[in-house]
Amino acid sequence: MRISILGAGSWGTALSNVVSDNKHEVILWARRRELAEEINQIKENREYLPGAKINSSIVVTHDLEYAVKNSEIVILATPSQALRSILREAKKYIKNDTIILNASKGIENESLMRMSEVIKEEIPQNSQIAVISGPSHAEEVIRRYPTAVVVASKDKRVLKVLQEVFINNYFRVYRNYDVIGVELGGALKNIIAICSGVSEGLGYGDNTRAALITRGIIEIMRLGKKLGAKNSTFSGLSGIGDVIVTCSSMHSRNRRAGIEIGKGKKVDEIVKSTKMVIEGIYATKAAKKLSDLYDVEMPITQEAYKVLFEDKDPKKAVDDLMARRGKIEVY
Amino acid sequence: MRISILGAGSWGTALSNVVSDNKHEVILWARRRELAEEINQIKENREYLPGAKINSSIVVTHDLEYAVKNSEIVILATPSQALRSILREAKKYIKNDTIILNASKGIENESLMRMSEVIKEEIPQNSQIAVISGPSHAEEVIRRYPTAVVVASKDKRVLKVLQEVFINNYFRVYRNYDVIGVELGGALKNIIAICSGVSEGLGYGDNTRAALITRGIIEIMRLGKKLGAKNSTFSGLSGIGDVIVTCSSMHSRNRRAGIEIGKGKKVDEIVKSTKMVIEGIYATKAAKKLSDLYDVEMPITQEAYKVLFEDKDPKKAVDDLMARRGKIEVY
Repeated sequence: MRISILGAGSWGTALSNVVSDNKHEVILWARRRELAEEINQIKENREYLPGAKINSSIVVTHDLEYAVKNSEIVILATPSQALRSILREAKKYIKNDTIILNASKGIENESLMRMSEVIKEEIPQNSQIAVISGPSHAEEVIRRYPTAVVVASKDKRVLKVLQEVFINNYFRVYRNYDVIGVELGGALKNIIAICSGVSEGLGYGDNTRAALITRGIIEIMRLGKKLGAKNSTFSGLSGIGDVIVTCSSMHSRNRRAGIEIGKGKKVDEIVKSTKMVIEGIYATKAAKKLSDLYDVEMPITQEAYKVLFEDKDPKKAVDDLMARRGKIEVY
Repeated sequence: MRISILGAGSWGTALSNVVSDNKHEVILWARRRELAEEINQIKENREYLPGAKINSSIVVTHDLEYAVKNSEIVILATPSQALRSILREAKKYIKNDTIILNASKGIENESLMRMSEVIKEEIPQNSQIAVISGPSHAEEVIRRYPTAVVVASKDKRVLKVLQEVFINNYFRVYRNYDVIGVELGGALKNIIAICSGVSEGLGYGDNTRAALITRGIIEIMRLGKKLGAKNSTFSGLSGIGDVIVTCSSMHSRNRRAGIEIGKGKKVDEIVKSTKMVIEGIYATKAAKKLSDLYDVEMPITQEAYKVLFEDKDPKKAVDDLMARRGKIEVY
């Protein structure tokens, strides 16, 4: 099959290599001409995935029309907040029977839409939309470490096609019909990563971290249920699986930001000190809005919001979480 | 209230201190007279929890009758395989309306019984049985780091009493009616800890670990369902929460054993080289038996069994897990 991947960041590059390993024709699109040319030449994405070669058969281009036209599958691996604008440029080249697979994790800031909702809104005549998510550092996928992910779509045929396209002996793909749940897990996990980091920064141990992670995913599950997701999805690879990988990795900017906050650094300073986006800050804002809008009890998210946006002392936030009335575990 | 804790290991000692912080009268029983006397004298359990003082009001004894008689709550914090024999000695002093709380994690080797089933069998006339579990290193609880656990019982009143007895500003207690699920999570988590360690020992990264942890808890969930547990319990503190703490801590003997196995050391050598019990080895045997008995698909447990008991190469085991047919995520 001919498969296009839009976005030559670390994840787009790693996914290109997986699909290329499976003998498909892969066109990887980079917004910047220089990046496209460099990857084409040295067969390495030195900027986003230094130290790992990609297959020589992968074609890298910065020509969107060439990248997308005549492709049977288009994979979106752009930053989530840029997805809509890139899609607006690309959509005139995408056919109605092309499968569109979202690989970006996030919620659109203003609209509070999931990425697949953005796609649906931009290309309403295409119904072959799917998402891929799960615990998968690009740095490890490009090195062919065993990885398991989930692909979600409402369309059974699309799921089967995508599972077949990706699965191999180091990249295991599960199918799931719950698009909402799979997307929400990936989008909101960074809230928990920040909280887990805060707990570390405060000097607390494994118990506190595990409690925050577990109770964090349970409140995301509660929100998900209100939004139409299935509980069981959050117990899977795109839910707790992705949370585990994010909270235990020093690669995670969100976890690192949390650690700094726990140590007393101001959120403004942290944001200013990096050029990169700390997605969990936006995710916390979105989840807080959704929690209020749908009247879902999300104590950890609410405390995270106070710490991030209202200058609340993080130690006080943990104390307040601990001081709540005794509850039953699942409600 | 007067509360007895049987077993002066690290967990029994830490729980004593929590309950004593809450102003209850605590009697901690140690099997060995010398240990009881030492803790009484120096107010520290130097053998199991070095470096942390316990409250001076805690009485430590090696006299079982004195420890148990007239107590309103008896907490069992012995090694799981020793629980039945200690209970046989203690039961003549336990009243029918005494609450019995199991804090030990494990499945009895021969009978395949959960600890609360052992208690029920030994003291059939007492129905006020409960269990406590969750992500809680004793080393951190004794230092009053924020910790969240779950107490399970079928008896609503017992749950309320126990929540009230334990809860405070660093020890948060949730109630759950699913005794089977809470016990199974604690008993079987060490299988996943071994597998997670094996993956590390093989040199794989965060992706593989997260996949094994997530898919591991899902197969334990499947077994639990067959045995009468609720799925949601395994997404909670006693399930994934405890797994997270165990798999990320170098305190875990099970994780450490897994790492050695991944690096090529033989299981026999590892067992011989330590005086301590590696619970996950027994748990794997028990879970494998249960998986066969109840016809539950547990691929990770089955591969762990082959590695631990049939000398299978751990790398081959991971390869075989990855090579299985593509599945749907929840089934």
